[in-house]
Amino acid sequence: MRTRPLKVALLGCGVVGSEVARIMTTHADDLAARIGAPVELAGVAVRRPDKVRGGIDPSLITTDATALVKRGDIDVVVEVIGGIEPARALITTAFEHGASVVSANKALLAQDGATLYAAAERHGQDLYYEAAVAGAIPLIRPLRESLAGDKINRVMGIVNGTTNFILDKMDSTGAGYQEALDEATALGYAEADPTADVEGFDAAAKAAILAGIAFHTRVRLDDVYREGMTEVTAADFASARQMGCTIKLLAICERAADGESVTARVHPAMIPLSHPLASVREAYNAVFVEAEAAGRLMFYGPGAGGSPTASAVLGDVVAVCRNRLNEATGPGESAYTQLPVSPMGDVVTRYHISLDVADKPGVLAQVATVFAEHGVSIDTVRQQGKDGEASLVVVTHRAADAALSGTVEALRKLDTVRGVASIMRVEGE
Amino acid sequence: MRTRPLKVALLGCGVVGSEVARIMTTHADDLAARIGAPVELAGVAVRRPDKVRGGIDPSLITTDATALVKRGDIDVVVEVIGGIEPARALITTAFEHGASVVSANKALLAQDGATLYAAAERHGQDLYYEAAVAGAIPLIRPLRESLAGDKINRVMGIVNGTTNFILDKMDSTGAGYQEALDEATALGYAEADPTADVEGFDAAAKAAILAGIAFHTRVRLDDVYREGMTEVTAADFASARQMGCTIKLLAICERAADGESVTARVHPAMIPLSHPLASVREAYNAVFVEAEAAGRLMFYGPGAGGSPTASAVLGDVVAVCRNRLNEATGPGESAYTQLPVSPMGDVVTRYHISLDVADKPGVLAQVATVFAEHGVSIDTVRQQGKDGEASLVVVTHRAADAALSGTVEALRKLDTVRGVASIMRVEGE
Repeated sequence: MRTRPLKVALLGCGVVGSEVARIMTTHADDLAARIGAPVELAGVAVRRPDKVRGGIDPSLITTDATALVKRGDIDVVVEVIGGIEPARALITTAFEHGASVVSANKALLAQDGATLYAAAERHGQDLYYEAAVAGAIPLIRPLRESLAGDKINRVMGIVNGTTNFILDKMDSTGAGYQEALDEATALGYAEADPTADVEGFDAAAKAAILAGIAFHTRVRLDDVYREGMTEVTAADFASARQMGCTIKLLAICERAADGESVTARVHPAMIPLSHPLASVREAYNAVFVEAEAAGRLMFYGPGAGGSPTASAVLGDVVAVCRNRLNEATGPGESAYTQLPVSPMGDVVTRYHISLDVADKPGVLAQVATVFAEHGVSIDTVRQQGKDGEASLVVVTHRAADAALSGTVEALRKLDTVRGVASIMRVEGE
Repeated sequence: MRTRPLKVALLGCGVVGSEVARIMTTHADDLAARIGAPVELAGVAVRRPDKVRGGIDPSLITTDATALVKRGDIDVVVEVIGGIEPARALITTAFEHGASVVSANKALLAQDGATLYAAAERHGQDLYYEAAVAGAIPLIRPLRESLAGDKINRVMGIVNGTTNFILDKMDSTGAGYQEALDEATALGYAEADPTADVEGFDAAAKAAILAGIAFHTRVRLDDVYREGMTEVTAADFASARQMGCTIKLLAICERAADGESVTARVHPAMIPLSHPLASVREAYNAVFVEAEAAGRLMFYGPGAGGSPTASAVLGDVVAVCRNRLNEATGPGESAYTQLPVSPMGDVVTRYHISLDVADKPGVLAQVATVFAEHGVSIDTVRQQGKDGEASLVVVTHRAADAALSGTVEALRKLDTVRGVASIMRVEGE
């Protein structure tokens, strides 16, 4: 075994970074045996150097992250700061100074992955980011490597633990959104400002990363259709249950039927209780992958948290260190298909529409006509009357999202339709 | 991109081999883009050259596998023959002649993996075998690479599709073992001689491979405790259901509580219906991994079949080809912990024991005394009388397998115990 250690610089020492540092210390012998050389923590850049950090040699702490990545003797920079800047500048500087990078930064990778990959390649360095999607669940590596000989047609997953916790609570207790969110906040599953999670921004960033890898093309955050889950109601769960479904916030990346484009989207959707994703409880994540030869695969585990994310980071650190000992690099960006990303209107799926209508003869015929005029075929209709008002629940066959939007717009104009109570996509069939 | 193609030799052209050849042809452009160089099929060794093989250039077919692996211009040998010989000799010869190897051969790897690894290392070649365990499910790579920075404590999985199909049928239809086996045979899920599957040999080979990788030590097929599932009855399923459980044939690899040894075993076991493995239906496979930092992960998918296995093989082919272009090799054997494998008697788990006893006062006291004398603590007892006979169902707390065996031996000697109807381990809690 080589005795000169490989040097790791840690940018950020919060929940994830401190776990990375701890495991590097407590499991140093194992890591050395697996890499073929010892690995040592050579510096830790933090914003608040006065904060007590148990187990980390104080002489390693610095507030000058730029100087740390410029040192020139660093083999691997672990970036667990998050956000766009200064993370992007630090990663680019690290490559320029001969270090490879392991990042957990989904926002940055979704917004500017191509630039980072290009910088890594220009300087002959590795860029690994297993921790950026679905925490500890091995997903990036299986998609980039295990399935490199296959053709992936679909990736559909629960990639945000906070929203899954909230939806699971609503499903199991009948609670409303706000009540479930309050519990998630109290238990530490949701942040004080939960916007990034509940509005789907976090999941959308992950969808962009997954779609790019799965389809060997470039998908940016802006290409991902996004709908949050703040408007999901207890009534929606009741409707879902009547259909033998539950509701999950899903990230869905698909290859179009003609193979000439891809789509990526995040929105709440009904899925059958028999679907493997339906039984993913609490804050767990799970991702379902459909590949031409492999068939249907699922990857399940904790999608966040200090230790799980540190596990993913350290797996990448080991891989990058092995590559350096081999004087090689791992797989870089693979975007050769250059498949364009189609807009949401082109997505084809099923829909569950709940309408409040006047309880009088002929309403169903009117509504059915509107669906027919827009080329949206109805699978089932359920009608419930209550005091002169009635509700009409329509489940469609597969139709383009644009056709469904047109249908809903036309329905809203009908005198007999008092309101569109909810529209939800139905997936997983 | 490099224009000189990498050359692949295929040993075996059955269900898996023919799919590998087909995908290499139909997806040649994708494979080339992902590898960074074209890859071509340079030869296919078969036993029966006269058999029609659609899509494969007849000039590539040979019956002389040894000559093929000795050619010297082969980059990757794909071994999908199975069995010990001639596979072992061919793989070793391939390494000697400068080729890396991708194998799907679980029996050989479980029996002699260390020898193969040593040969690969001696000749600077890669040995990859994702397809050997759980078909298309990325499992070897996640364990060897994604979790390389973590400490795995437990691997528990359904790794044989045939037996899962049979047990699932028994569970869902109330059928007996023979009836369910007949259906599996009729549908092509079970072979004419199902011994390797139903007696647990196939799962034991996979357990040996998984345990070795997970714990960075050497575990051979002979080290794996093995019990088949031919004696599981409809009555066992009824008992399981009363406990909120189902029955699965599990491969379980564990690190001992003191961390100083490991165990590997295959046997039928009751698991709670709420456990993710309980809902793995039909011939699907799933493997549950518990790691110190990552927590609980699960990998799910088709565990066998031509296309899924070919997907795993081709993922390895791409990885090995990339390594060759990098003039590097991937991770080799990692057995540095040298943890010994403990015998089954040391395994600690829970038990469900069904006894036929005389229906008279004092029997329960006698039985309970035997358990106590052997240090096995009882969790619950359920007593059912029927015409002078009674059945007693005992569920224990966690106890060493040796203590349970001693208990059962002593129980059999009691006059009041007419017979031990079944003993089944309870896992997943």
